[in-house]
Amino acid sequence: MTTRRAKGETVGSIMKNEFLAVSDELTVEETIKHFRTASLEKVSKPSYIYVVDPRGYLVGVVQMRDLLSHSPNVHVRDIMLKNVVKVHAEMDQEEAVRYFIRHRFLALPVVNNEQKLVGIITADEMVDIAELEAEDDIAKIIGTGVDEITTHSIRRIVRLRLPWLAISILSGLACAFILGWFERDMKSVIALALFIPIVLGLSESTGMQSATIVVRNMALGRAALKDVRWLLQKEMVVGVIVGLICGMLVGGAATLWQANSNLGAALAISMSISIILSGVVGSCLPFLFRFVRIDPALSSGPIVLATCDIITLLIYFKISAFFLSGS
Amino acid sequence: MTTRRAKGETVGSIMKNEFLAVSDELTVEETIKHFRTASLEKVSKPSYIYVVDPRGYLVGVVQMRDLLSHSPNVHVRDIMLKNVVKVHAEMDQEEAVRYFIRHRFLALPVVNNEQKLVGIITADEMVDIAELEAEDDIAKIIGTGVDEITTHSIRRIVRLRLPWLAISILSGLACAFILGWFERDMKSVIALALFIPIVLGLSESTGMQSATIVVRNMALGRAALKDVRWLLQKEMVVGVIVGLICGMLVGGAATLWQANSNLGAALAISMSISIILSGVVGSCLPFLFRFVRIDPALSSGPIVLATCDIITLLIYFKISAFFLSGS
Repeated sequence: MTTRRAKGETVGSIMKNEFLAVSDELTVEETIKHFRTASLEKVSKPSYIYVVDPRGYLVGVVQMRDLLSHSPNVHVRDIMLKNVVKVHAEMDQEEAVRYFIRHRFLALPVVNNEQKLVGIITADEMVDIAELEAEDDIAKIIGTGVDEITTHSIRRIVRLRLPWLAISILSGLACAFILGWFERDMKSVIALALFIPIVLGLSESTGMQSATIVVRNMALGRAALKDVRWLLQKEMVVGVIVGLICGMLVGGAATLWQANSNLGAALAISMSISIILSGVVGSCLPFLFRFVRIDPALSSGPIVLATCDIITLLIYFKISAFFLSGS
Repeated sequence: MTTRRAKGETVGSIMKNEFLAVSDELTVEETIKHFRTASLEKVSKPSYIYVVDPRGYLVGVVQMRDLLSHSPNVHVRDIMLKNVVKVHAEMDQEEAVRYFIRHRFLALPVVNNEQKLVGIITADEMVDIAELEAEDDIAKIIGTGVDEITTHSIRRIVRLRLPWLAISILSGLACAFILGWFERDMKSVIALALFIPIVLGLSESTGMQSATIVVRNMALGRAALKDVRWLLQKEMVVGVIVGLICGMLVGGAATLWQANSNLGAALAISMSISIILSGVVGSCLPFLFRFVRIDPALSSGPIVLATCDIITLLIYFKISAFFLSGS
């Protein structure tokens, strides 16, 4: 078993010192000599040789191949690549993962506030982190954390799950309270109660699916404000299609089973509307959380579920009251 | 924006030909010459130089550093590392991710059925794949797929979500049917209907949390049959703690609000039992799916939800009937 890294760390805390840096005043021959005599650790991750100026600023990068194919007396500053992609020591490791995915380098140099070269991060380390970050976002949405995947501590698991369950309890009590308003409707048409699980279930699924997609798009850096409109439009269209299909199927089934076409119509219409709205809720709330600087992954799950449940119950009973008041 | 890879591919379909391989009969000097004159692409990912015997079998690996620190006339076979970690071209890319996380290499050689060196896979490519595999497992559990995160096709999204929603509809209709058995109980104590959402909601959360943890443990290669007992025990203990806390809170709230201590007791007991069972269902079903060779990630979500819902409703109404029959 491998040890997994913690998440949410900065590049500075995961970087390594095993890199090769040479002065930009060295020649190719001197650089090769430096490479040959450097301690084993520094070259065991071969990748790149970084070039720094007298102040320690990162000014370029060369590869072994460039050294071997140039005359020994050339200066490295004349053959180095000057446009170095680098990361900052205080950058979040998740952002560093994006750099690796975008640029596909085997290693990236790390600079501090003064632009001085202080370390490297290598792609092999990022494989683990990439997996961890993706897992954690979605683990949070369903109300746990990535730690739970590998921890053996019951106490830790309970602590990860309880805040989420606390919101579920509050939201469930709110649902009970709202259902209390419609006690009389349910007493007269008890069939209304039978369909509570299905009506809620489909709204919840839709809301969670949208929220997960938006949260991951945010992590992938694809959810700028200009994308909000697109994500919303997409959810609306998907919601209309899925809502109509589910509404008609369930409405049809209810009509046949309960021999009550008014109930069927109420179910079809309220499920269609609430599925559409749940998709919108699921795609908007993560943006709202990000705007108020709350972790969208952490808050989206339970709050999207609570919002979808409450909206759905209100729609279901209001529409049913309209259709069934005469029956 | 970067293009993301498809998932579920083999190592053979993602490997690259840009590697350096030399015959084991070459000397250090000849190898350096080979390195220097090789095409740029082959050395742009510097990493390792692989050594093959006359039949093309992979027999060793050397690093640039080893070449530069040895006498030019030594044979590479005398300085190479012989115990090469390699992957098979037909290995699933997700398994290759595990190799990178376990061994932390920048590149791994790929061999075919005849053990001949046919390509390499590099760590920078695996960052993307690691993220994708983790995302996909959990996206499937909540009823969509990793494709949805980046696709722009409404058709594709609807197709990803519909099978899951179809199972939700069937399970919701089953719930309605089961509730039908208890129509009389609800008519006499309508408060029973008010708590359907909260009772179902907490069971569903618990079931989904357990299933997600088990599915990711499977993907991480940590869910052998010997681990089943541990995972189950863990879920049982967590279920007992979480179930008792939630049951007492909701039971207490219901007692105060409805001024009905029998209802409160029924809620407390049935929620505790159904939360414990939901944790067990969530942790066992993925193993069952793996046993019958169905993708545990794909099937766990909707089937765990359906099972938890049905079990929970039965427990809730059976226990309530016992407590409220006299009231």
